[in-house]
Amino acid sequence: MSSIIYTYVNNNCHYRSIAVLDKRIEAAVRRGVGVFGKKLPVPQKLDDAIQYSVFPGGARIRPTILLSVAVACGDDNPSLANASAAALEMIHCASLVHDDLPCFDNAETRRGKPSVHNKYGEPTAVLVGDSLIANAFGVIARAADKDAVRAAKLIALLSKYTGFPKGICAGQAWEAEISVDLSAYHQTKTGALFIAATQMGAASAGHDPEPWFELGARIGEAFQVADDLLDVLCSEDETGKPSGQDVTNQRPNAVSEYGISGAKQKLRDILGGAISSIPSCPGEAKLAEIVKLQSNRLLPKEHMKPVA
Amino acid sequence: MSSIIYTYVNNNCHYRSIAVLDKRIEAAVRRGVGVFGKKLPVPQKLDDAIQYSVFPGGARIRPTILLSVAVACGDDNPSLANASAAALEMIHCASLVHDDLPCFDNAETRRGKPSVHNKYGEPTAVLVGDSLIANAFGVIARAADKDAVRAAKLIALLSKYTGFPKGICAGQAWEAEISVDLSAYHQTKTGALFIAATQMGAASAGHDPEPWFELGARIGEAFQVADDLLDVLCSEDETGKPSGQDVTNQRPNAVSEYGISGAKQKLRDILGGAISSIPSCPGEAKLAEIVKLQSNRLLPKEHMKPVA
Repeated sequence: MSSIIYTYVNNNCHYRSIAVLDKRIEAAVRRGVGVFGKKLPVPQKLDDAIQYSVFPGGARIRPTILLSVAVACGDDNPSLANASAAALEMIHCASLVHDDLPCFDNAETRRGKPSVHNKYGEPTAVLVGDSLIANAFGVIARAADKDAVRAAKLIALLSKYTGFPKGICAGQAWEAEISVDLSAYHQTKTGALFIAATQMGAASAGHDPEPWFELGARIGEAFQVADDLLDVLCSEDETGKPSGQDVTNQRPNAVSEYGISGAKQKLRDILGGAISSIPSCPGEAKLAEIVKLQSNRLLPKEHMKPVA
Repeated sequence: MSSIIYTYVNNNCHYRSIAVLDKRIEAAVRRGVGVFGKKLPVPQKLDDAIQYSVFPGGARIRPTILLSVAVACGDDNPSLANASAAALEMIHCASLVHDDLPCFDNAETRRGKPSVHNKYGEPTAVLVGDSLIANAFGVIARAADKDAVRAAKLIALLSKYTGFPKGICAGQAWEAEISVDLSAYHQTKTGALFIAATQMGAASAGHDPEPWFELGARIGEAFQVADDLLDVLCSEDETGKPSGQDVTNQRPNAVSEYGISGAKQKLRDILGGAISSIPSCPGEAKLAEIVKLQSNRLLPKEHMKPVA
């Protein structure tokens, strides 16, 4: 969880719950990218660049959602849930590294520091993304001992929402099309890893992932609108990445479609819908509180009326 | 199997066995990259580029080895073996697409046609590789129904030999290091996917993969030496890719180390060692014949004395 978000921490039990999840996530991601240790000779530059791309993390919002859903569903196999959270975050980090490449966004900075290709060169940046994608699936597979059927389901979900045609790879590819299916574009580009988060959270605790699609899709949609607003409202210093990228790269944007106040209203509507879509589960009420809490952090306080 | 290799086909039963494997491989790869069908809107350029990168294939040597080992071990779960073979080939194709990128080899051609980035542009080529890596793991996960424990083991192996620090990503990364561990470089760059082939073949049939490391490592080593020889001996027309790449890119090469006849002798020695390393299994003798057969195809007839 980023330091910006920690400044909001108070004594509310939901904040404490998230702090507990944070520890699980960081430990799991650390195991995920350092699992083989340093005993054998490794190409040092790639090793350094992998660590650089994953630590310190951003908001770790996807694995936080995954673990929140797992907890709401009973969390009866925490090591598999942790592995799933780490794997999902590794895929997300891979996507940031590849999206920043010169042939895509050509972003010089990310999370307030030089982008991976800017610091380590383009070949290493390509390999960081490839390694993180490949290793992510191994992280789940190696946590399969107690329930391999569940692990296989989790791997199938992560593969689906990473690759083609329903994953973030397809999402990025829509930007190279002349005729874009906007719904498919948004659901794959931003929605896919949030859908993965809710569905994998449920599946890691042995629940049917299907009813959790809606929550993930809505959080993804909210995140996209918030990101569009941030792109316009905030400076590079505040977001840690270059502003105005959507205009520069001529990408569809909720602000250009609805205006600033229209986009803010849309964000609140989507979040309300997200919360009411939460499937029946043991920890339903607490999960609703966590989603509200996370929602209220999507934009800086001055731009966001709290979601009721 | 490429048409060049088909010209050698005769009535020998081992050739027929390989032709049977070829059919299994092509069908499995076709399912692997086309599994979701064309019902939903997909980014067409990426879809086309994925198909282009996988069909028509090269020699499909890694999945052929995988299935040959699976058959030698009893092949009691052919759908899982097929899925593993397809997944391994998808990873191999991904590695070719990314290795050809301008920031690595900047290769204009591959398998006798324009490289993927040359035909579809660099962004699409990056996404083809990413999609193939991500989808490969889903192919195995979706074949887990009969034996999820085995599927998880197969995914762990494929992840290990694709990613970091023991996979082909690490292998490629050694080329960006100032001080190179040559043994680690060769084993990861070329060896990794052959070790994956033999170990996954055994694991797909429920055998312990560990004793199959040696065979994969030796075939990988032979393949590397043969590739080094081809790079010097053959024209671009014969290999389907630019000649003299190792000299151009200042990569370590067996021919510069041992000379042409020394490298040929080394190739024969390694192949002899590979055959004698085959672990005890029901189809040991037949597998030895298949490895010999494949070995004799590593170089054009005029450059290769048959392995006894």
